[in-house]
Order: sequence, then structure tokens, then C-alpha cells
Amino acid sequence: MFTLYYAADTCSLASHIALEDAGAKYELSRIDFRKTQQQSPDYLKLNPKARVPAMVTPRGILTETPAMLAFIAQSFPKAKLAPLDDPFAFAEVQSFNSYLCSTLHVAHAHRMRGHRWVDDPAAIQAMQKKVPQSVGACFDLIERQMLKGPWVMGEVYTIADPYLFTLAQWLEADGVDPARIPRVIEHRSRMAQRPNVRKAIAEELAA
Amino acid sequence: MFTLYYAADTCSLASHIALEDAGAKYELSRIDFRKTQQQSPDYLKLNPKARVPAMVTPRGILTETPAMLAFIAQSFPKAKLAPLDDPFAFAEVQSFNSYLCSTLHVAHAHRMRGHRWVDDPAAIQAMQKKVPQSVGACFDLIERQMLKGPWVMGEVYTIADPYLFTLAQWLEADGVDPARIPRVIEHRSRMAQRPNVRKAIAEELAA
Repeated sequence: MFTLYYAADTCSLASHIALEDAGAKYELSRIDFRKTQQQSPDYLKLNPKARVPAMVTPRGILTETPAMLAFIAQSFPKAKLAPLDDPFAFAEVQSFNSYLCSTLHVAHAHRMRGHRWVDDPAAIQAMQKKVPQSVGACFDLIERQMLKGPWVMGEVYTIADPYLFTLAQWLEADGVDPARIPRVIEHRSRMAQRPNVRKAIAEELAA
Repeated sequence: MFTLYYAADTCSLASHIALEDAGAKYELSRIDFRKTQQQSPDYLKLNPKARVPAMVTPRGILTETPAMLAFIAQSFPKAKLAPLDDPFAFAEVQSFNSYLCSTLHVAHAHRMRGHRWVDDPAAIQAMQKKVPQSVGACFDLIERQMLKGPWVMGEVYTIADPYLFTLAQWLEADGVDPARIPRVIEHRSRMAQRPNVRKAIAEELAA
């Protein structure tokens, strides 16, 4: 049994969907960012990074979406959520997920979390101004070079798909015109029709 | 045979050291950032992200340090560079490396690569001002909570070690006082004594 600590409208949705895809037994524990619960002493004991997601497992606590997604895939091999027996194909999945966490998500975070990197309010505004361009450039690269289709890695669904879907929730709010990335939008729509995705989103909204 | 595209004084050193540790056959190809070779049409064909590292393999091209490190570990299992048969322990390695790429390296990049996220020169200066604090907070967390010692994961050396060593090269230039993170500094010194690390650094300096 796992316990996934999540917050609504954050990247924790990717691990939540993957747990559903894996057929894992898990509980959800909601962290309310409006109440800054991620800074509470109890949560900091679980995850001193003061972020989501975090997942409590019988072996210990895991954080960082790419690591959690690969762990879920490896822990439930029958679900075939990653090419576990092919190091190169597995690395391609990991490379995609690593790009999402270190480049796309980071570009996005400059809209709402600019205080991580700067204190001056004018500089935070200047950062926000560039988000459509920096996030847009990431999605352009995904559209043209990375998303094979119909799933990220081609014919086979993997842990790269719920992660892309999760970050693609925010592109309109980031000022990226969806018309310029039709394949990303098509992927997002395809994901949104999956029962596991609907279930995960409904669970997060209901909590 | 692999070909590692690297640039001096960048995170590509981590993969370079791991290739040595693995006993892999590889060639090096230097990308000169001073000549903006990462933007050249030839290099963009290999890696449209215009960054290093990139690694050409018989199966295709890989990018993103955490993915490349895990690929090297999985491709050379006899080198025992990661706990490949234990999904939880492997996830702990991956979580550490994911934190380095998405949080520590990103905080560091605000000193030299602020143009990725902002255009205004005053905002770039404001970003640079916070680098000692944001990078320092990452190293504090690594010092107190993440680095088990003597190696990152404890008694056994893994692909987390060359990655931490590589990013720890920059902490003084980022304005972080080494005196506050003695265990990170001790790890860096221990790494610097390893013949494979010395060889990789010498190769990059000689090119």
C-alpha cells in the first residue's frame, strides 16, 4: 500500500494517474497549498523539500516525479508502463520525463513561483512576461521532435504520457496558443478520455 | 561504442565520469560554448535542445543527465553503478538525480543563464543576487538530509556520486560558503581523488 501526498492542480497528478494505470493499491492525502500545508512541520518530516508529490511506501518515502513514475512502472511490471527490459528505450522515456521536470515545468514555474529565484517584485513581473515564450518553446520542441504519437513514445502508452498530460493542463494559462501545438492538444484530449485519468481527476476534485 | 558530446565545465562531466566508471568504450566530442557550437546546425541535428550532454549510441541519441546516467548503469550492470535489481533503491538514486537536475542545477543556472527566463537586464541582475541563497538552500538540504555518506547513497558508490560532484564544482562561484556544507565538501574531495574522475577531468581540459 502506498500513500500519495498530492495537491490539486500540480504535477502530482502524473503519479496519481500512473498508480491507477498500474493497478496499485494506494491512498491519497491532500496537501492544501492555500493553507500552506506543504510548510507544516508534519509534512516537512515527510518531505523536507516542502513540495508535492511525495509517496510513502513500505520501504520509505519517495519524491520527484520522474523517479516515482519509474518506480511505479518497475513495481508493477505487468502493467507495462515502461520498456523495462530495454535500457535504451527505458532511457528514452526517462529522458522525456527529465526534460519535463527540469525544463518545461521549470519554465512554467516562473509564472507562479518566481520567488524561488528572485525577490524583487519588478523582476518577478519581468519573469512572468517571458513565460509564454519559454513554455511555448518547450511545447514547440515536444510537438515537432519529441511526441511520436499517438502516445509520447509511439504506439505504446508509457509513464511519459500522464506526465505530459499533467503539464499540458497549464499551457493556456501560461499564454501558449494551443493552435500552434495541435499534436500536443490531441494527445491531451486522448488522455482525458481514459477512464483512469477521469478517475484520478475526479478523486482530486472531490477531496 | 558511444560518442559523448560535452562542453567543459558543464554537467556533461557527470556522464563522462560514469562512462569511465562503467568501463564503457566511448569517444568524446567537444562542443565549444564560447563559439556557440551548441547552436550550430550540425549540433542541432543531434540535439535540438542546443545543450550538452548528448550521447550517440548504436540505438540512437540520448540527452538529459539523469536518463543518461541510468542508461549507463543499466547497460553495464557488472560495474554496479546503481541498485538495478531493487526498484525502491533505484528510485532513491533517481530521486536524488532528479532533484539535482530540476532544482539545484536550475537554481545555479540563474547566475549565468538567466536569459532563459527573463529579458530585462535589471531582472537578470536581481536573479543573480538570489543565487547564493537558492543554491545554498539546495546544498543545505543535501548536506543535512540527502547525502548519506561516505557516498550519496551510503556505503555503495552510484551514479548519484559523479552528478553531485559535478554540480558541487560551482558552489563557490555561486556564492555558497563551503564551510556550511562540510559533508558535501568532503564528498567532493573524495570524488576528486578517484582515478576515473581525474582521467575524465584531464581529458576535458586537454581537448
